[in-house]
Amino acid sequence: MQAQVDHRGSDFPVIIMIAGFDAAGKGEVIQVLNEWLDPRRVETIAFNTPSDEERERPPFWRYWRHLPPRGDIGIFMSAWNTAALAEEAFGKSHPKRFARAITHIANFEKMLVDDGALIVKVWLYLSRKAQRKRLLRLEKDPKTRWRVSPEDWKHNAAHERLDKLSRELMKATDRPGARWTVIDSEHPRTRDLAVGRAILDQLRRHIAQRAKIRKPAALSPPSPPVPLVAAGRKLLEQVDLSKKITAAAYKRRLHDDLGELNRLAWDAERAGRSIVFVFEGWDAAGKGGAIRRLISAVDPRFHRVASIAKPTDEEKAHHYLWRFWRRLPRDGMMTVFDRSWYGRVLVERIEGFCTEAEWRRAFDEINEFERQLTEHGTILVKFWLHISKAEQLRRFKAREGAAHKRHKINTEDWRNRDKWDAYEICLGDMFSLTDTPCAPWHLISADDKRHARAEVLRIACRTIESALDE
Amino acid sequence: MQAQVDHRGSDFPVIIMIAGFDAAGKGEVIQVLNEWLDPRRVETIAFNTPSDEERERPPFWRYWRHLPPRGDIGIFMSAWNTAALAEEAFGKSHPKRFARAITHIANFEKMLVDDGALIVKVWLYLSRKAQRKRLLRLEKDPKTRWRVSPEDWKHNAAHERLDKLSRELMKATDRPGARWTVIDSEHPRTRDLAVGRAILDQLRRHIAQRAKIRKPAALSPPSPPVPLVAAGRKLLEQVDLSKKITAAAYKRRLHDDLGELNRLAWDAERAGRSIVFVFEGWDAAGKGGAIRRLISAVDPRFHRVASIAKPTDEEKAHHYLWRFWRRLPRDGMMTVFDRSWYGRVLVERIEGFCTEAEWRRAFDEINEFERQLTEHGTILVKFWLHISKAEQLRRFKAREGAAHKRHKINTEDWRNRDKWDAYEICLGDMFSLTDTPCAPWHLISADDKRHARAEVLRIACRTIESALDE
Repeated sequence: MQAQVDHRGSDFPVIIMIAGFDAAGKGEVIQVLNEWLDPRRVETIAFNTPSDEERERPPFWRYWRHLPPRGDIGIFMSAWNTAALAEEAFGKSHPKRFARAITHIANFEKMLVDDGALIVKVWLYLSRKAQRKRLLRLEKDPKTRWRVSPEDWKHNAAHERLDKLSRELMKATDRPGARWTVIDSEHPRTRDLAVGRAILDQLRRHIAQRAKIRKPAALSPPSPPVPLVAAGRKLLEQVDLSKKITAAAYKRRLHDDLGELNRLAWDAERAGRSIVFVFEGWDAAGKGGAIRRLISAVDPRFHRVASIAKPTDEEKAHHYLWRFWRRLPRDGMMTVFDRSWYGRVLVERIEGFCTEAEWRRAFDEINEFERQLTEHGTILVKFWLHISKAEQLRRFKAREGAAHKRHKINTEDWRNRDKWDAYEICLGDMFSLTDTPCAPWHLISADDKRHARAEVLRIACRTIESALDE
Repeated sequence: MQAQVDHRGSDFPVIIMIAGFDAAGKGEVIQVLNEWLDPRRVETIAFNTPSDEERERPPFWRYWRHLPPRGDIGIFMSAWNTAALAEEAFGKSHPKRFARAITHIANFEKMLVDDGALIVKVWLYLSRKAQRKRLLRLEKDPKTRWRVSPEDWKHNAAHERLDKLSRELMKATDRPGARWTVIDSEHPRTRDLAVGRAILDQLRRHIAQRAKIRKPAALSPPSPPVPLVAAGRKLLEQVDLSKKITAAAYKRRLHDDLGELNRLAWDAERAGRSIVFVFEGWDAAGKGGAIRRLISAVDPRFHRVASIAKPTDEEKAHHYLWRFWRRLPRDGMMTVFDRSWYGRVLVERIEGFCTEAEWRRAFDEINEFERQLTEHGTILVKFWLHISKAEQLRRFKAREGAAHKRHKINTEDWRNRDKWDAYEICLGDMFSLTDTPCAPWHLISADDKRHARAEVLRIACRTIESALDE
């Protein structure tokens, strides 16, 4: 397969989704594909019953963890489309569920396609009669009888409904880069060839298109950012930086709130609710100190701190959200992100580490990501630790003066400081576009460290408590 | 903590193991460590009940997946040592189990230490009386009552036995680089400081020692290998390369054996047995073709092909076996390794990608790895596809001649061919030192491709069948 050869060393992932009616030959098609394709860059992933580690995260976690890196091919069987159909056709009735499932699927596929992925989706069609015939033939042969389950007959009986639902799903999730191909599967040989042709055609077209719109070898140096939301910056100006708290009051509040947080973390564990903290803030705003106080209240068995620095090469080979998905806590656990996915619309936007199109669509992608988290039941708390430019200067100088803190300051910190204005613009956009009802931002006045730490604790407690009360 | 700062950017992983008696304050100690240490490179992992994904792999899989990469610190709670003690003290009685568990632990820790890791093991000791006192105090306070479980009282009653077993375990697993420190935990403040001191001392000593024995910046170009086992090479010479099979006989055997393998894969799935195939062989020996035939018989839902090429940077930051552990199949599943961990004693030995000490100890490490696999119930089948030097030349030329095969040959293949003799020596050592009763090598005569493919299938079927019969 020459197209396969051409794909080697290319810079995008390919997802081949094999879906369709029972007994239409999904397994056989995948077997044939595995014979045709060089197994070195192909992985077949069939999704059966989710494991407990999968059940305890948002539903798409299991798909994220198996997404092929750029240059590789993943053959997916019984993945998100199949799951949504089965749920709607045979799950407990639930209004709007199917519509919501379709939205999530469309968003997910759009996000992957925007990132360069090719998704080839094949629907193996079989008429009710042909399906019946094939099931009967399988049942007749003692060697294949075990392949037919009562489920299959149930699906055969529900053929009309499944057909209608699948058409609806396909219509809503058909887009350039993620096209559906419906293939009549009555005759295996024709079916296999049609699948192979669909894959080859779409692969060739994708390669040709990417050649046209290839990114410039070096991204152009970014110009100063222009705000998307004019009023966004005002949100920062509204933070009252004069807020202070006395040492005595701080001690009292800390004691009470740490006890409270400890209790709430146990409650969340028992309730099987995971907690995700996001800490963003200016350099030297006191993220580290605030995180340390916060986790000091929580049994170390329940929490992890995920410090986000440079991505590894495995992470770079995936969509930028992949490295955050892989760190999501199981139910009952807590992950504290020291910097987060918001780097996409802050440092990456400012430094030109991604294209304008990439950071522009990141706002929607992030909202969708956080929606999936909260829909799953994760309690999400986002902090921006805000300080004045003058206070930052004071802290930088103090760090340079103290030997045991010197490692905390470097030239990059000074460079970032020069971009204060640019960051303010990006922050304004970020607060305006990602402050959602289920994932609001908490801007913390942090010129006074004690006040900031106390506030973080107070908001953490309040948010977890009200989430558990729901 | 200046020592922590010194560790940043260092090139070895640190495992801090917090173990000890119930109510001795393991959680508190970890909390204090988390406050002392910079959270950016520290991860706390507490091992509770294994998840299903963990239960369906060898017991150490769950530890491997959480090992810190070089430069990071992992704080482990209730890890392998605790598991072995609990199993022996309260599990079903089983002769020699404890001895075997200790051997696995000692091997595991030796392997990590040999690779540069520092393991600081802390045993928080509490006398039976002091434990009893602390449990009673916890029970009295309504805020902490829930922390005391019937288990704790059971453990208090078994204090003497646990004390004896823990001493036995510590004695057998105390070695340079993985020392135990027993700390009396009656007084929390003294306990915390003693833990901190133990970690700092051992960290400093480790850093000083590594500075002395630092590897040369560039590994010296390897000299031609000298066999460890004089007779090893003979094993290769004994392969009868004249074996052939007619097209008709091949077709017949293939048909029968593919059907048989399909049935056996289903049986293995139902029996919850995982299968691991290892394919090694000369360049152009036909590994790819043999693998494709093999997997064509197996439902694609059950198998993965793991093609081993250059390690990723995440893989390079771990022990070399880490990247194979992370690919192990769950129970009922099958993984086909196209090249494998044997690269350590072949290409890495020959090209000098690792030191002599590293490939020398790899034989034992590999045997231990495979023993853990088979003890778990994994069916392991290892193939070496053998061809003559003349046949390889013929195939290289044929590949260069055919446009659609040209991508399969490059200058590196020709370079490897020049090292045929060196490979024969390393292969001799490999067959002699890693052909174990539970993981024997199968040398396949592969000058005739049909014969090779048929043999691979026959041995695969025979091995799985006899393993399932046990």
